[in-house]
Amino acid sequence: MSDAFDALFAPQSVALVGASDDASRIGGRPLRYLREGGFKGRVLPVNPKRETVQGLQAYAAIADLPEVPDTAILALPASATLKAVEDCAARGVKSAMIFSAGFAETGAEGEALQARLTATAREAGMRLLGPNCLGVFNPALGYYGTFSVILDTALIAPGPVGIVSQSGAYGAHIAHLARNRGLGISQWITTGNEADIDVAEALSHMVRQPDTRVVMAYAEGVRDRDLFIDALETARQLHKPIVFMKTGRSAVGAAAAASHTAALAGSDGVFDAVLRQYGVHRAATTAEQIDVAYAAASGRFPAGDKVGIFTMSGGFGIQLADDAEAAGLDVSPMPEAAQKELLALLPYAAPRNPVDATAQAVSDLDVLKACVRPMMAQGGYDVFTAILGTGPGSKTYADPLRKALMEALAGHEDRIRALTMSAPVEAVRRYEADGFLVYEDGSALAHALGALAKFRRAFERPASAPAPMAPLALPQGPLSEAGAKALLRQAGLRFADEELAATSDAAVAAADRLGYPVVAKICSPDIAHKTEIGGVAVNLKDAQAVRAATEAILARANAKAPDARIEGVLIAPMVQGGVETIVGVTRDPVLGPVVMFGLGGIFVEVLKDVTFRAAPFDVPEAHRMIREIRGFPLLEGARGAEPADIDALARLLSDLSRFAAAHRDGVIGIDLNPVRVLPKGQGVIALDALIELEAS
Amino acid sequence: MSDAFDALFAPQSVALVGASDDASRIGGRPLRYLREGGFKGRVLPVNPKRETVQGLQAYAAIADLPEVPDTAILALPASATLKAVEDCAARGVKSAMIFSAGFAETGAEGEALQARLTATAREAGMRLLGPNCLGVFNPALGYYGTFSVILDTALIAPGPVGIVSQSGAYGAHIAHLARNRGLGISQWITTGNEADIDVAEALSHMVRQPDTRVVMAYAEGVRDRDLFIDALETARQLHKPIVFMKTGRSAVGAAAAASHTAALAGSDGVFDAVLRQYGVHRAATTAEQIDVAYAAASGRFPAGDKVGIFTMSGGFGIQLADDAEAAGLDVSPMPEAAQKELLALLPYAAPRNPVDATAQAVSDLDVLKACVRPMMAQGGYDVFTAILGTGPGSKTYADPLRKALMEALAGHEDRIRALTMSAPVEAVRRYEADGFLVYEDGSALAHALGALAKFRRAFERPASAPAPMAPLALPQGPLSEAGAKALLRQAGLRFADEELAATSDAAVAAADRLGYPVVAKICSPDIAHKTEIGGVAVNLKDAQAVRAATEAILARANAKAPDARIEGVLIAPMVQGGVETIVGVTRDPVLGPVVMFGLGGIFVEVLKDVTFRAAPFDVPEAHRMIREIRGFPLLEGARGAEPADIDALARLLSDLSRFAAAHRDGVIGIDLNPVRVLPKGQGVIALDALIELEAS
Repeated sequence: MSDAFDALFAPQSVALVGASDDASRIGGRPLRYLREGGFKGRVLPVNPKRETVQGLQAYAAIADLPEVPDTAILALPASATLKAVEDCAARGVKSAMIFSAGFAETGAEGEALQARLTATAREAGMRLLGPNCLGVFNPALGYYGTFSVILDTALIAPGPVGIVSQSGAYGAHIAHLARNRGLGISQWITTGNEADIDVAEALSHMVRQPDTRVVMAYAEGVRDRDLFIDALETARQLHKPIVFMKTGRSAVGAAAAASHTAALAGSDGVFDAVLRQYGVHRAATTAEQIDVAYAAASGRFPAGDKVGIFTMSGGFGIQLADDAEAAGLDVSPMPEAAQKELLALLPYAAPRNPVDATAQAVSDLDVLKACVRPMMAQGGYDVFTAILGTGPGSKTYADPLRKALMEALAGHEDRIRALTMSAPVEAVRRYEADGFLVYEDGSALAHALGALAKFRRAFERPASAPAPMAPLALPQGPLSEAGAKALLRQAGLRFADEELAATSDAAVAAADRLGYPVVAKICSPDIAHKTEIGGVAVNLKDAQAVRAATEAILARANAKAPDARIEGVLIAPMVQGGVETIVGVTRDPVLGPVVMFGLGGIFVEVLKDVTFRAAPFDVPEAHRMIREIRGFPLLEGARGAEPADIDALARLLSDLSRFAAAHRDGVIGIDLNPVRVLPKGQGVIALDALIELEAS
Repeated sequence: MSDAFDALFAPQSVALVGASDDASRIGGRPLRYLREGGFKGRVLPVNPKRETVQGLQAYAAIADLPEVPDTAILALPASATLKAVEDCAARGVKSAMIFSAGFAETGAEGEALQARLTATAREAGMRLLGPNCLGVFNPALGYYGTFSVILDTALIAPGPVGIVSQSGAYGAHIAHLARNRGLGISQWITTGNEADIDVAEALSHMVRQPDTRVVMAYAEGVRDRDLFIDALETARQLHKPIVFMKTGRSAVGAAAAASHTAALAGSDGVFDAVLRQYGVHRAATTAEQIDVAYAAASGRFPAGDKVGIFTMSGGFGIQLADDAEAAGLDVSPMPEAAQKELLALLPYAAPRNPVDATAQAVSDLDVLKACVRPMMAQGGYDVFTAILGTGPGSKTYADPLRKALMEALAGHEDRIRALTMSAPVEAVRRYEADGFLVYEDGSALAHALGALAKFRRAFERPASAPAPMAPLALPQGPLSEAGAKALLRQAGLRFADEELAATSDAAVAAADRLGYPVVAKICSPDIAHKTEIGGVAVNLKDAQAVRAATEAILARANAKAPDARIEGVLIAPMVQGGVETIVGVTRDPVLGPVVMFGLGGIFVEVLKDVTFRAAPFDVPEAHRMIREIRGFPLLEGARGAEPADIDALARLLSDLSRFAAAHRDGVIGIDLNPVRVLPKGQGVIALDALIELEAS
């Protein structure tokens, strides 16, 4: 991260090019906000037509500025922007942000113009934000390099939430919602068309800021894969949750994303898997994004998954229990002894969990305390939740209720405490000041608590540490099955012993050595789909069958693919049993080499039951990957079958990911299909291998 | 529905038993609310200790009342309630509601007490609401028979939303949220312990009220299946959406539900399917319940699924497009010609759909109109949505923006119009007054619009009209496979021709007639699991094989099940091919006879890919049922297979449902497993049949 990049957020001096005296205009708003925010740095308006702008001395041109500013805010029409960037570059300005639209998002002409911005800046070593962005702000410094209208009514308080958004409008929207929720913001950046700085770099900066405890991010796609993954992993290691809104998941959305920015959207399923891989929470809705960020902003995570629910209404208790289970939390019952004690004291209560004190607790706060104390002392709950309904909305009741809860929870400050309630904002803030997370909606609360638990699990994981693989010299041109297997064997993958036979005599000799029954397959770098030309014969039980099959296969190959280079016929032992799976490598246009895994047959073809991981990854990560598919019970031994060798499968996936990462430039794709996962202890066998290499 | 039931909501006179002079107490609140609401009926407080209550003349006892009230509100402790119910019954009061808890929810003693309430009321022909409920209200009459604290701050405006809730606290909560959303309420009822009136009856009443346009319901379970289903179907026929919160879906939730009320929760999956069957929207969260009810409260539904999205920010547009597709809506592009025209006018716009006017439209409302007009005139959209962001939050901008939209939309009042925006409530109300649905969150909007489209489809369906089946005389005792098939054949179901053979000679003769290969299966009413005792032999290709298999099967049956009554060996043609499915009937403890359908093998065993319908239903409903399973593409001919005979499968499901309904008292369960769905035109064949009959 360069100083120039950091200067975007904390300049000592800033030029506002296109500064307007009218504080409601795009060139006027930033100045107004900087002054209202009490920004301590020097602000240098540039406007050739005025002596002063909003009371500050103005300069006619960038060349006339009395000093070289750390950053320049360009509030100019698109047509005037290139000139301004050139002037900044000439003057040695370190960074500039461009508000104007009218560049790559408008078509070829705009793209060319944007490319010239980038080239000019790169040549001068200047960093660019935008164009078509809403800029940055840093409330702790009163630095508002933006014209966003959400600051019209009020500025933003400093706080633990960092916001990184490709879309300016979206970034402004979630800043506005965060403010409404009482959340302060550490830094805020919108990247727009990303002529230079992209979401990945902005994220990488944001997660490293000491005053950022949680990041809300928005992107339609990313450009710099390595920086992006590094940012995600850095956040994980620093225990900083990222709550991500990724759009473009539908076909229409993806089409719109492509027309909106030049970002390649990548496959949404791959993006989704990578976020999961690095412990990022992907929000499905904006409301969810705010709800989860709010919970995570405290920087505290539950030590375990156990949730105790206190309620004064049975119906609400059931609903929250449903929601908590759906969120992956453990609504475990109170210990029997504690239930008995509680019942002896309050015979009408439901003591299990949810602990239902009934409406009695509304009128008698001692009843509430009598329920909550044993929940904390004996229940072993990592999270305490209470359903307070509209009670805290009452002026007379809100404070006594809060104090009763605080008394009952005393000594258990290490637990997460959360409430559902409906009350005026001042009452909510008092509960929050006492350490409660406050939600109006129980399912939003449960979902956010589930996200906290998942963050904790992701943070606790050691970093995935796949041993790096030394790149191999890749052969030229396409590879046959035997060639593909030979290459992958060098990389440590194991296949069945098999032999390449050029003639039917050699095939019979090979089969004799390998043992019957065997399979015979045409072996040619030019025949990728062997069955289509009748190039495969299975279950050959004796020499005669092998001889006949080999001759027939060679004859068919000659007839149907006369130009193919034939290496011979591959003779392999017939492998049966185990669970059929598919393993592959694909090079995602955005996220680079990714490993795919799925069960074979209908699982892949009908149910699309596959999952992905960015390569490389280690064996524990492969285990998590395997467990994501819906058909996983089949590998565990559903339907009375033996459990499969999941350990060997995980090793295969990790090894393949290391190979894919080491050869990310040369390997376009790999198919291992099928891979049979044999019973536990017997390993995995890839029965076929296909590698597509980059033409060199 | 009785007059007594209706009197609960609209009494001419009401006794308040346990009336308190203190308007903050349970016995005082209803009186306060009735007076604040301007209730025109006669209110008769009963309190033996006071001459007057809150200024009204009080009576010492129910017997002393000057008239027989239409209804009585019993605000008494549990211990005094039975006496009051007896007094009401003796006086001829038509209906009473009981607020107090301390009945069936507390265990055996409370259950007995509650049973006495019910018995007393039934004997006198009096209707009871509760106990352990929050009563009813009817804002149009100012009638508030409740002590809910949500009325402390303000009463409720009359309006189109009916609320039916088992839980008083939940019912109060959604009434409060509806009020916050600007929604008025037609009638509100909470049923609590349901000693007499249950959610089904309340729902049945609610959907028939002329001033109710949409119903929000909450239940942990239902008691009266027929009334429940009738209520759902009546709502569908009257085009009144029901938005249902059903809790107890998790194991913990179900356990809590059982401890909370005596309601049998039923299987959540069955309940879910029945709601779908009748076009009810099941909400996953309370926020969703309010969001969908709000959209439905207008009583207007889109004519089709096409949604046009107008945006001034690309990012938001993509997000709403994603959400709309996820909600099942059709984000179809503008016609090519319209796109070209729009681009000619506004070269920087994205004209496809979302139509993105860029931030230009913020400063120039003519740009907005230039985009919206062709969307309405040429786009063919059933729903118009616009993303306004925080714009309407500006005092100066809100009204011009609204007026510009209204101008552009003029002449298209038949379309649904909806907005996402963030603004003060007064501004929101002005947009609503102009016919806009207003949401802060785009995904909530998209989800609600999707729900409206689903309601419309459900309302358009003709009523499911399965021909009733005349009940058959059910045999005594358990049935063998042959017996089960014979019974189901009488009901119109078709099976393969097969013959029961008592000896191996007979078996061979049967096989000769049927044609080889055949299957031989032990046939006994006492052997349900035939394979477990080695009672099945498949693929018997000649007489010799049939003879040997028959003898072996009979010998094994004799050895392993010596007490079983053996009818012989069933000889059936070997059926292969087709798609393996499972069809069954189960008697849900709450929802009665339901038909289950799923694909065989891993689909049922690993993926639990099954669906249900309440019996009986017609063939079109069976088609919808079949399309609900994830594995449906297999029946359509995925993986290169022939399409299966889905029509025949649908007929089988409907016929079986008619049989199940006709014999709901006598039949406990039916398994047809497997059922092979043969290629299109070749029908379905149930290879096995098992029926469990009620012991008579």
